[in-house]
Order: sequence, then structure tokens, then C-alpha cells
Amino acid sequence: MSGARLKHYGWGREGEGMTRAEQDFVLGRYRTKFARDKFETVPVPRIEDLKLRPARVQPPEAIADFCTSDRYDRAAHAYGKSYPDYVRAMLGDYDCAPDVVAYPRNEAEISAVMDWAGSVGACVTPFGGGSSVCGGVEPRVDGIRHKSAVTIDLRHFDKVVEIDQTSRAALIEGGTYGPSLENQLKPHGVTLRHFPQSFEYSTLGGWIATRSGGHFASLYTHIDDFVENLRVVTPRGILETRRLPGSGAGPSPDRMLIGSEGTLGIISRAWMRLQPRPKFRAGASIRFQTFFAAARAVRAIAQAGLYPSNCRILDPQEAFNTGAADGSAAIMVLGFESGDHSPDAWMARALECCGDHGGKAETANPGDAHLEGAAGIWRNAFIRMPYAREFLTPAGLINDTFETAITWDRFETFHDRVKSATERAIIAATGVKGEVTCRFTHVYPDGPAPYFSFHALGRHGALLEQWQAIKNAASDALIEAGGTITHHHAVGRDHRPWYDRQRPELFASSLRAVKKELDPNGILNPGVLIDA
Amino acid sequence: MSGARLKHYGWGREGEGMTRAEQDFVLGRYRTKFARDKFETVPVPRIEDLKLRPARVQPPEAIADFCTSDRYDRAAHAYGKSYPDYVRAMLGDYDCAPDVVAYPRNEAEISAVMDWAGSVGACVTPFGGGSSVCGGVEPRVDGIRHKSAVTIDLRHFDKVVEIDQTSRAALIEGGTYGPSLENQLKPHGVTLRHFPQSFEYSTLGGWIATRSGGHFASLYTHIDDFVENLRVVTPRGILETRRLPGSGAGPSPDRMLIGSEGTLGIISRAWMRLQPRPKFRAGASIRFQTFFAAARAVRAIAQAGLYPSNCRILDPQEAFNTGAADGSAAIMVLGFESGDHSPDAWMARALECCGDHGGKAETANPGDAHLEGAAGIWRNAFIRMPYAREFLTPAGLINDTFETAITWDRFETFHDRVKSATERAIIAATGVKGEVTCRFTHVYPDGPAPYFSFHALGRHGALLEQWQAIKNAASDALIEAGGTITHHHAVGRDHRPWYDRQRPELFASSLRAVKKELDPNGILNPGVLIDA
Repeated sequence: MSGARLKHYGWGREGEGMTRAEQDFVLGRYRTKFARDKFETVPVPRIEDLKLRPARVQPPEAIADFCTSDRYDRAAHAYGKSYPDYVRAMLGDYDCAPDVVAYPRNEAEISAVMDWAGSVGACVTPFGGGSSVCGGVEPRVDGIRHKSAVTIDLRHFDKVVEIDQTSRAALIEGGTYGPSLENQLKPHGVTLRHFPQSFEYSTLGGWIATRSGGHFASLYTHIDDFVENLRVVTPRGILETRRLPGSGAGPSPDRMLIGSEGTLGIISRAWMRLQPRPKFRAGASIRFQTFFAAARAVRAIAQAGLYPSNCRILDPQEAFNTGAADGSAAIMVLGFESGDHSPDAWMARALECCGDHGGKAETANPGDAHLEGAAGIWRNAFIRMPYAREFLTPAGLINDTFETAITWDRFETFHDRVKSATERAIIAATGVKGEVTCRFTHVYPDGPAPYFSFHALGRHGALLEQWQAIKNAASDALIEAGGTITHHHAVGRDHRPWYDRQRPELFASSLRAVKKELDPNGILNPGVLIDA
Repeated sequence: MSGARLKHYGWGREGEGMTRAEQDFVLGRYRTKFARDKFETVPVPRIEDLKLRPARVQPPEAIADFCTSDRYDRAAHAYGKSYPDYVRAMLGDYDCAPDVVAYPRNEAEISAVMDWAGSVGACVTPFGGGSSVCGGVEPRVDGIRHKSAVTIDLRHFDKVVEIDQTSRAALIEGGTYGPSLENQLKPHGVTLRHFPQSFEYSTLGGWIATRSGGHFASLYTHIDDFVENLRVVTPRGILETRRLPGSGAGPSPDRMLIGSEGTLGIISRAWMRLQPRPKFRAGASIRFQTFFAAARAVRAIAQAGLYPSNCRILDPQEAFNTGAADGSAAIMVLGFESGDHSPDAWMARALECCGDHGGKAETANPGDAHLEGAAGIWRNAFIRMPYAREFLTPAGLINDTFETAITWDRFETFHDRVKSATERAIIAATGVKGEVTCRFTHVYPDGPAPYFSFHALGRHGALLEQWQAIKNAASDALIEAGGTITHHHAVGRDHRPWYDRQRPELFASSLRAVKKELDPNGILNPGVLIDA
């Protein structure tokens, strides 16, 4: 944890953000898209001007030294990074700010906070990097069951505790941010290689709790597969699973906790499977006439058993928006990497699959192709994109993304239904034609994980309602067409209505039964995933 | 389901078994091992001589037409295929035979049996192929909570219902036996390629319920990864998960059911991910001076990201016992296969890894090496081995296997501790030096799944106690040294004491809470996995 503190509004740390040139590029795209010279822009309240209610509860002396109710801490833990979060913060609505933020330094202190919270009817929100885009870190107090809100920030759980070079695994604390984690591993020649878009401002525990999707486009798509064991602090005590490379002893205890989104406990540490640092790379950008032609090439590669580390496709408009192409072609960003051997044979076969579907390689560079050409431009845009929301929202622009997964047999129909439902909803909600684009983030032999972006010209005073109408239409369409409400962003509270439709009722009641067992007073993240 | 009925004692169907020559080979190894000319052999009771208690309960008329209490059906559903199962059957102990065996033809009939069983205080045992080697299909009636026993045999759930060539997946019923499943897929050019040793006499539902380990030595080791969705009949109704290639929406509902060993419900059907039929193969047998040298080569291959379909090693004695080698060297059976491309580049790199650890390739044949040389001999012995127990047990020989997994950093110490504890236990229990051998069945980047076989000269009248003493010592050692009590055989009832030590208590109580939710009367498989 270095230098400047995290922004209470916006992505990253205070002082960071897009350069003027980057902002101009992004806004320029919107000026063209909506044929506007400029956008009416409203100011975002300064932290000193925010109105926060007085804290409704005070921690007892025994835990007071690592707890605070300071204005900054409460404001900076009020929201995640979703579009509605930005709108409400812009409007100065900090109703959901926690009353107390705790920064425990060990498991006993986590337990002490849970015990106290349970005794005073406070809810507890686990907080890693706060990058949730689905309402996962926002405290919600119903005034009945819960009367106040405590957020537990895991930032002191920031160490790589042990490295096992033989098994290529490491014991890592749950509050470790992405860059710190990699920096601690690097001197030992190993890496986790889990790079979600939120990498810089998210934590290992958050990744596991939300089934984060990472660097690898195929095979090891979710963090799930890298978990060797878990140690979790629940309101009932410590739950630690056995460290094993594989097991068939009953249902996996790890898989019950992975994806539990802070509703069952707080992940204090985990043994994680590591990767060697890549020594060999092969990369290429491939142009296709249509998005569906690119998708068919992806399917061929995924079913060939080649396991590329990167195999992402962008539809023509998505490629244009990020500056990766001119809008006339779909782009595939294809990459193989290895710490052991040249992946040339793998790449050669994957390029044949592309050729079978009309793909033309733009660049095919065995070295740094992942940093060059369309692939490189897109990669840079991908990393910088989270900084856009903090100025697009005050400009009245609605931009958001949603992601899903679907089997190949249903993909093309699914894509068209979801895309057109979202386009129609944008016009209905805003009166102005918007834009919906699609890419693949991850891919499986039996289907892709499509990732949609949408852009709409909103109206100040109605942004939340407009966004919600579009979100509802998109989510309805994707659930009705057979997809999942989330492939790797998580459920949180924002996706609950559709998660509840997707999830078998008998699994919901099973999950509630587990929740009651581990969190009998229902203090942890009420409303996330389930109503306890 | 063809021709002859399944044996009530022994492996497979009536009339099947090892040839005289195969029996001589196997017994010859034991004669040499224990320096005996012959073994005292006791007769196994014929089915018509078995003493079965009268059925304690009778099905009502509404379900009577698919239920039976016939002698054969009750006897054939009394046991699985474990060593203690064979001993008790040989002794004519059929105390645990179910009172009624039901053969439902649809989900409604499964539900009807569950409803009736719940109403009369009968326990319900789901039965696929009955190949459990850990007490998973044996009814146990405590006389208090349960007063009688009903077994549900899923043999009528035997169809491949639908094939989706685009996504390469199929909807398959839970009671489908391995050969029938593959025969139904074959005309469509696809295969599940899940070949546990029990393949011929086990079912899809059984594989999923027990987290069966299959054909692939790396990557897709367990059936778990092939499950796209599940449809399960629980006492509370149907639980069906959404068919998806991947998802991040909360904890995986499939993973709660996979490995639940019939305690939460009966798997009626599942969408399964398929493989193409292999068109390209590369295979080799490689000799190593020691088992640990071979293990280090396995580690190198597993960590190189090559994903061989076969990567099994046999210690020198194990290789000798199956006739695959002369006992002076450890053997690696290495194979790659693909429906898409030549795996020669993969094989070449894997052989380099072997060379780095002193491995010398015996055969390296791009075509049918998996059927030739040491590899082929071992493969044949592997498939035929289940037929040995039915004549070894009456000969007073104790032979059994146990399997586990451990991370690489602990493997060598672990191996030595487990092996020597088992060897000491054999001498203590039988007074005669026995033999313990080891191989790897599956392998992960962070550790292997070692599989131990042991051989002891037992004494009629004491076989059960001798076996139990050895099993206890081996299991204690394996749990104390950090392993799992099972990598793919399952927990059942036999592994419960060690599973209970391995499993975090808060997960046990969570599992009990789920059980109570889905099976409120605790009728399903009482004592398996958990005490409800």
C-alpha cells in the first residue's frame, strides 16, 4: 500500500486518472456517436462538502484502536465502482456509508469485530479493493434486523506468507492487492498471473469471494482453479480446508466458499497455485469479416484442445471504440505463453483454425505481439478504461458493461436477442439511439463468455432510472435466452432479481441453510446473494 | 443392459471372470511372494443357499410393479465391491441386504419411492453399477431411525437423450452404464472419454455422485469438469441447475451436488461435456531407475503445461506384479491424444522432461503405443484386475488398494511414511511380511495422486479384522501426513473416520444443514459422508 489514499469517488488513488489526451479520445468517440459538440457536465461534490449522518454506533474500547468513523474512511467505503454507484456519489447521496470502518490486523481482530457487530445489530461488509460493479460492498441497513453498518477493510492482510517452489504454490493473505501480490512473488520467479481488469485495485480475497475472471482466456478462466485451500473467518469461528492438489472426498468445501461474496465469512488466507513466469510467447491479431466468423474460429480453437492464454474477439464497433481497428472488421487477439517451451506448434494450429473461418493475421510475432498492433492498443485501453467512468458520469453519459456465458449451440441467437433488447431499451429510456457492442473475454469448449458494452446519452436528473431500465431489459433478455446473469463480475445486490430466477430454488434454500449455520445472526453482507 | 444378470458375488455378469491362465498368473505372483505352494480356499455360498431375513416392509400397490423383494435382487444389492464386502459375502453374511429393490422408470417413480420410504421409516440407497469400494451402496438400518431398507436401482435411466454437436455436449441419464453410454455416443463421432477402472459396471450418476477419476491423467482428472448441468431428484423435489459452459454466479450449485454420494438426491440426468474421438496419438513407456526419479519427471511434465492424457508411473514392484516389467525399474506410461492435431511437439517436450530425470524410452510410437509394450500390458491388467478379488478372497489373500493426493513438497516423505506404516501393519496383523506398491493415477501441477496396493497373507476366520487393522494404519498415516482420504474412490462409510478428521467441522455442519434442507427425514444413504 503506497502513497496516496484511494479516491472516495473514482478509480484508483487520488491524483491518478486519464490524461487530457486520453479523455479527449474517449469523449471524442461519444461526441461522434451522439453528434454533440459537448455534454452538459455537473460537478462532483468534494469530500469536505458531503453530508454524512452521524455514526449510529461506536466501537467498544477493546477494538477502537483499529476502527474509525472518520469522514474520509466512511465515504471511501460507501460504494463500489458500478455505474449507479458513480451517479449516487455524484449526487452526494451517501446514505449507505458505513458507521464504522475497521482495519483489523489479524484474525482475532476480525472475529472481535464480528462478535461486536452481532451484539449491537450491525451488519458487516467485507471490503478488499472495493472494485465491485454489482453492489457487493455497499452496506445496506434495513433499520429492523440491522441498525448500523460496519465495514471490515482487509488491507492489513497484505502478505505473501510462504512460497512452496516445489509444488509451485504460495500462501497469501486475503487483503493483498494485485500489484503487491505480484511484487512479492516476482523475486522468486513465480506469478499468480491472475489479472482481472480491476487488478490494481482488487484483492486476492475479493477475487476468490466473487469468482473473478482473470488473465487466461481458456482453461484457467476463473480464480477458482488456482485455489489449493482456504482459511475463512466466519462468525462461528475459523473454517480451514486441507491443502491438496486434488481430492474426491465429498463435495468440495472450497467450492462452497468460492463465490460466497462475503456472506459466509472473510477469507483471511489461501494457498494458491502459481505459474512460472512466461519465457516464451506467441501472439497475433487476426481480422475477420464478421463477429460470428471470429466466434466460429474461437470455437474451433477452444475445441481443439490448444488452450491459448489469450483468445479474445472484439466486434467491429468494439474494436473501433478502443482504437484497435477502423470498424470494418472483427478482431481476434490471440496469444500463447509458456514458461517451459515454445508455443509455436500451438500457435500454428490456432492460426489454421482462424484461416478456416476467413481470418487474416495482421501481426504474428513470436515475441511481443501482445504489446503491439491492435492487440496492444486494445490491451492498453482495457487497463485504462476503469478511469473513464468518473468523468463520463458527470457528462451525463451512460456507459456500462455486462457479461454472461452461453453454450455454442445458442450463441448467435442469444447474441442477437440480447443486443437488440438492449438497443431497444436505450432508445425507450433515453429517446436517443445508443450503441451496444460485444467481445469475448473467456472461452470454453462448450461455449463463450460474451461481454457486452453499452453507451447511451443520458439526462441529468434521470440517469439512475435510465440506467436501470436498460439494465433490466438486458438482464431479462440474457436470462430468458438461457445465459448466466454473471460470468465473473459476481451477483452482489444488483444482479439478485435475475440470479434468483437462474438459481434453482432448492439450491437457494440450501445456501440459506449454510448461511444460518456459519452466520447465525445474519450479519454478513445482508441481501448479497441471498436473503438470510 | 445385455444378456446375463450381474453377479451377486464378484465382478461383472454371471459367466464372466478371469481365464484359468489369468488366474494362474495372478496366483503365481502370490505363491512366489508368500513362498506357498497353495492357499487354503473356502467355498462361496450359492445364491440359493443364502439365508436372507424376510423382507421387513412391502411396497404399496401404486409402486409395486417396479419393486421386488426377490432373493436375487436383494442379494445382488447388498454389497459394493470392497474387500470387506467380498469377505462378508463369502461368509454368507447378508444382514445388510435391502428389503425391497425398486427399478423406477422415470423421475415420478423415484419420487414415489422416496415418499413411501419416508412414510414407513425406510432408508433409501441409490444404486448405479454397485461398484463402490468404500461402503457406499450398502444399506444400513439402525432399527431406531430406520426400520427397513429400500434400494433404488437406476438401470432404466439408461439413455443418451440428446446430443449437441455444436457445443460438443450430451444430455445423458444417470443410470447409463459406461459401455452403453459410449455405444450411444459413438455413431455421432463423440465420446465422454471417462474410463474409470470400473467403467463396464458403473454409471454416469455414480461417477458424478462419487467424483470419479477417469481416463485423463492430467487436466480433466475428475468427472467434475465434464458436468455442464445436473438434474437431481431430492426428497423435496427436483433440483435442476442451468446448463452453462461457465459461470460466476455465486457458489456453484453443481459442485454442491458433485460428490454428495447419494445423500442429497438421485442424479436423473446431466448435460455432459464431450470429447472428439482421438485421431492422433503419441505414446511411450519410459524406464526410470527409481520411483522418485519417475515422480520428478512427472512433476516436470505436469508443471510444463503439456497436459498428457496418460502420465502414470508404476514403482518397480507394481510394474512387476502386473507383468509390465521385471521389477528392476519404475515405468512411466505416457500418452497424448487429440482429435484435432498431431501431439508430436507435446510428446517430444515431455520426453525431454523424462530424459532430464534419467528416463529411457522403451517404446515411442506415434500410433498404438498405448496398446503395446509395458504400457499395453499394464493397461490390460488394469482392466482385468477387478475380476481377481472373487478368487483371491476365498484363497485367504488380502489385497486392496487405497488412493490419495498430496502436494509435491511433501510427496516423498509422505510416500515413505504411508508405505512403511502399511508394511508394519501387515506384519502386525498377519505375522507375515506383505507387500505395498505405489503408482500415480492422476497428476496436477501442484502434486500427484498416489495409488497404493497392498498384499497380505490372511487367515480364514480373521480376514475382516486383519484387513481393518491394515486399513486403519494406512489411513491414519495418510491423514497424519497431510493427504486426502480419497482422491477418486469416494468416502462412503468405510472412509468416514478419516474424512471426519480431514473435513473442517464448520463444513461438516454446513453439509448437515444442506442435507436437512433437501432430505428432511434423512432417508438417503444414512451414515454415508455425514450423520444426518
